[in-house]
Amino acid sequence: MIGNDASKWSQEDTIRILIASDIHLGYLENDPVRGEDSFIAFEEVLSHAVQFDVDLILLGGDLFDHAKPSPSCLFKCTQIIRKYCFGDKPIAIELLSDQFENFARVVNYEDPNLNISYPILSIHGNHDDPVGQGSISSLDILSITGLVNYFGKWSDYTHVRVSPVLMQKGETKLAMYGLSHLKDQRLSHLFEEKKVEMERPDESDNWFNILTLHQNRADRGPSNYIRECVLPSFLDLVIWGHEHDSQVTEMKGSKRDGFQVIQPGSTVATSLAAGEALPKHCVLLQIYKTDFILTPVALKTVRPFIFKTLVLSEENLGEEEVNKNEKVQEFLKLKVNEAIEEANQLLNGDSAQPKLPLIRLSVFYERDGQDFNRVRFGQNFNGMVANPNDILIMKREKKIRDRKENNLSMEEADIAGVAADAVDVESLLHSYFEQLPVDKQLSVLSVRALADAIRDFTLKNDDEVFRRVFEAHKSRCVQALMESNAETEAEADERMRICKEELDAADGDKLIELLDTAGKQSQSTPVSKTTAASKRVVVLSSDDEEPLMEVVQAPVRGRGRGSRGPRGGRARGRGRAKEPEPSPEPVERRTPRRSAAQKSATWLQSLTQGRRRRASSEIDDSD
Amino acid sequence: MIGNDASKWSQEDTIRILIASDIHLGYLENDPVRGEDSFIAFEEVLSHAVQFDVDLILLGGDLFDHAKPSPSCLFKCTQIIRKYCFGDKPIAIELLSDQFENFARVVNYEDPNLNISYPILSIHGNHDDPVGQGSISSLDILSITGLVNYFGKWSDYTHVRVSPVLMQKGETKLAMYGLSHLKDQRLSHLFEEKKVEMERPDESDNWFNILTLHQNRADRGPSNYIRECVLPSFLDLVIWGHEHDSQVTEMKGSKRDGFQVIQPGSTVATSLAAGEALPKHCVLLQIYKTDFILTPVALKTVRPFIFKTLVLSEENLGEEEVNKNEKVQEFLKLKVNEAIEEANQLLNGDSAQPKLPLIRLSVFYERDGQDFNRVRFGQNFNGMVANPNDILIMKREKKIRDRKENNLSMEEADIAGVAADAVDVESLLHSYFEQLPVDKQLSVLSVRALADAIRDFTLKNDDEVFRRVFEAHKSRCVQALMESNAETEAEADERMRICKEELDAADGDKLIELLDTAGKQSQSTPVSKTTAASKRVVVLSSDDEEPLMEVVQAPVRGRGRGSRGPRGGRARGRGRAKEPEPSPEPVERRTPRRSAAQKSATWLQSLTQGRRRRASSEIDDSD
Repeated sequence: MIGNDASKWSQEDTIRILIASDIHLGYLENDPVRGEDSFIAFEEVLSHAVQFDVDLILLGGDLFDHAKPSPSCLFKCTQIIRKYCFGDKPIAIELLSDQFENFARVVNYEDPNLNISYPILSIHGNHDDPVGQGSISSLDILSITGLVNYFGKWSDYTHVRVSPVLMQKGETKLAMYGLSHLKDQRLSHLFEEKKVEMERPDESDNWFNILTLHQNRADRGPSNYIRECVLPSFLDLVIWGHEHDSQVTEMKGSKRDGFQVIQPGSTVATSLAAGEALPKHCVLLQIYKTDFILTPVALKTVRPFIFKTLVLSEENLGEEEVNKNEKVQEFLKLKVNEAIEEANQLLNGDSAQPKLPLIRLSVFYERDGQDFNRVRFGQNFNGMVANPNDILIMKREKKIRDRKENNLSMEEADIAGVAADAVDVESLLHSYFEQLPVDKQLSVLSVRALADAIRDFTLKNDDEVFRRVFEAHKSRCVQALMESNAETEAEADERMRICKEELDAADGDKLIELLDTAGKQSQSTPVSKTTAASKRVVVLSSDDEEPLMEVVQAPVRGRGRGSRGPRGGRARGRGRAKEPEPSPEPVERRTPRRSAAQKSATWLQSLTQGRRRRASSEIDDSD
Repeated sequence: MIGNDASKWSQEDTIRILIASDIHLGYLENDPVRGEDSFIAFEEVLSHAVQFDVDLILLGGDLFDHAKPSPSCLFKCTQIIRKYCFGDKPIAIELLSDQFENFARVVNYEDPNLNISYPILSIHGNHDDPVGQGSISSLDILSITGLVNYFGKWSDYTHVRVSPVLMQKGETKLAMYGLSHLKDQRLSHLFEEKKVEMERPDESDNWFNILTLHQNRADRGPSNYIRECVLPSFLDLVIWGHEHDSQVTEMKGSKRDGFQVIQPGSTVATSLAAGEALPKHCVLLQIYKTDFILTPVALKTVRPFIFKTLVLSEENLGEEEVNKNEKVQEFLKLKVNEAIEEANQLLNGDSAQPKLPLIRLSVFYERDGQDFNRVRFGQNFNGMVANPNDILIMKREKKIRDRKENNLSMEEADIAGVAADAVDVESLLHSYFEQLPVDKQLSVLSVRALADAIRDFTLKNDDEVFRRVFEAHKSRCVQALMESNAETEAEADERMRICKEELDAADGDKLIELLDTAGKQSQSTPVSKTTAASKRVVVLSSDDEEPLMEVVQAPVRGRGRGSRGPRGGRARGRGRAKEPEPSPEPVERRTPRRSAAQKSATWLQSLTQGRRRRASSEIDDSD
């Protein structure tokens, strides 16, 4: 590495960028103690940008904690950005590339109706990626208001082509590649298949190339992270978002083969994991022609957080059975108090720094009697720590024993243990259906789509997602059935089976495509004029045993007409509508003769009918 | 009324304002057919502002359909406002009043970092009033971004003091009073109690006084609307938002005693009611010194909507019992087709106008056999109307008979009938609890607060509201109990009863106050270190019969300790925690002796404990 002397760099040729990532605005915003933490840290980041008088602020994704930030969160975010980034200061850096290609609009500092002093560039992360109607991200809102220049938004997830933001200041030329979050499996496959392209400007110009991405960097299972070696070697710096532990060091470097990786880490702890207890930073990057200097900037407004791992069997707690529970508690109280002391050492006198510390003891216990009520324990520290209700996490020591034999330190083992134990709901769902006998498995709905929906529901608060997923399934199956002209129920069932297999084979993005068009398809596919309104439609795994998911419940007269297959006659069960109670009112009985395909299609159509109608019937009461 | 001749008015002294209201951006935004309607109409409104080259755009509330607009909705709204209202055109109107008092910040067109050509002023309505954390309205977001100047936001709902926006253009002086939506009961009481004050500038200056408000104007029950006569007579014009039927006529006038009322109506039909089928407008207001001219501007991009009332007994359908259902259906199909024809006459050739019409037939039937499945009926008009699923609304003719005897026309009777039949969930809740025997009624929770919460939940999508309401109740009761030092359970019960009575006596706003401080109180009131975590807490009306509302469900070991009163010993039942299953694990049994008040307080404290803890435990999995 070549030593650089920034004092000899001419300011007119030096690009200065303040880098931060994973700001998670709105994290725990309703918590009376911690609610402001994310905003305080963001404000500090921007204040550093002003202080260092940078040319740009570069964010590595997850500016927001939620895809649909609350009004209060959007308000505060806007307030902070307007406070620091709007103003008369002229911008010294020139944009050379096609702004509409980069940002879908003009860069904010060239917008004639806005005065920008510190332009922010940001990709999206997994927390603030586009959701719902129109695939609008919270960053899109900041973009259209001119608060942020949102780049690296891909439009084709089957072939990613990154067009860099090209900037120039004096003799320094900067190419900024942005790759907003994609599912890690997806992106790693795209890399394998050579389907990630990065457009290169004229190479003779000695561009300094930076890639910003937001993906797993740590190994979280096969294909579930991005290996650095797949990234193209023409890059000079990689800004790696998503990983919350801050890994940045003072660094001087120069353009050369290979690249350096900067992992800024989060600016607020969004979990009580060991990595979040490390000191948090933003980073000042200075580039002069082909040389650069990286300077970590420690954040002073981060709430103190002490993480400790304790193994009860290694502590001298005595062997008596009597009162061992109390003994353990007394010991742990002592440890918490020590941690609070330690946390107080982290208070740096900044008036904006939250004072009450986060304390997490990760405790490994050996025997049942050593476990106890952790919430009650936490009440001892009300008003002394910011997280009294979850100070302790208690784990059986057995689990970690095996790993210790692999010569991991306790801390390492702890982290590894958590990672190994962690299962997400998606995996649970998959394994639940995998272990079911074949005839109990779903025959219409794709488990993968359901799992994706659940992820979007929990992670992004996307409460429309289930409706869209069902609409998508419905449209697809209805279409397939109508095209098939199946005459018998068996043929219709067969068509459904094929349809389901196609769905399962399609990867997540194919399903996304389906979702995007679902609304229109279901509107434009008049299936049958005799579609019955179902009183209560329940999706069952196979027989009428236990409802898996209730789809509709609308108090309407009439009979749902499920297309019933021969009971037990097939190895594969089918999803189906539960027949409602016979209605006491006279109902229209004479229905025109319909093919099996039409009947099945009708049933599918009815699945979301009730819901849509209910929505419409609400209309009358609103004003 | 004095005739005015605008052609003689000097442009330098004429203030021109474009007025619109109830734009309901995002209404049915997920509907593939109607989703864009609200945005199209808003765009037309702003295009008229540009066309008439107005000085101001004035909105009467409900710019958004939801208090928490979707990202897509905010995006589109911002896009439209930026397209029409940002630019270099100089603003000719001068702001004289204290901008921070009016808007909590500088007016957008004087913001040095923004270029505004057509400033929007808006109050909030009942759909976009402040919600949740920090009481932030969606209008606050538009305000902080500089898109809208949000005025008339009151801060004290016990005494409303309106400070006008004072503007001047040449010799014309304008005082704009804004009163954002308040509950009608609340506001009418405030008027009765003379607690609504409007500040007057120096009266010798001949200010032209406009009040913009967003309330019920039509009589919707005692105190449930604002009578025009309570408004101060110094006003010259009143812009009345909230009522969706557009009632504006060409008008010339002058400053004089009394005032004129303009009811712009909504720009999009948000219900299939008769009033929404009237032609929709925005309004051009021109003021020259003390004279004014009002010009209705018909909107051309409104979806055609035909509303018809049909009384089957008055139609010649024959008396046979056979097939009368089919006969009615055939008749109604004919009528729908006629209505579609009629709707097509409303197409004005504007390319932005949505073509598929809204059709609503309000049908009064006499006999059971004349009723039938309306959704199935609607399938006949898939692709022909925008609302196939709710074309028909069927009502029993009996109901309307009585009213006909009062010499109302069918149309009038229809509207009256709908109004009389309409019950909201809040009223249902009230009447449900009223009809319960005394010992089944709620003893801790205030029904009023619950009803308010349900309204906020449904109308504003405020999914935090129940948590806040429970926190508020908890804090209040806990505090009362701790202060009471009740020693016996009977004393504690008595204190709870008083506490509940106070809650019921407090009006809605007192409860709001409680809600606002609840979070902090519950954090800073350590009740008992032995608070047990309850496995499942259910609020019951009295005995353990049917759970009214499930509050918490957290998989934690330990015993919930409800404070149990003597069974049947009291006339009044109490809310209480359901005792969880005894835990198989050894639990801490020795608890310090506590007073009854402390025990009750502990139980209350535990109500929301589980929920908070669960939120914390989620932390570990996020990244």
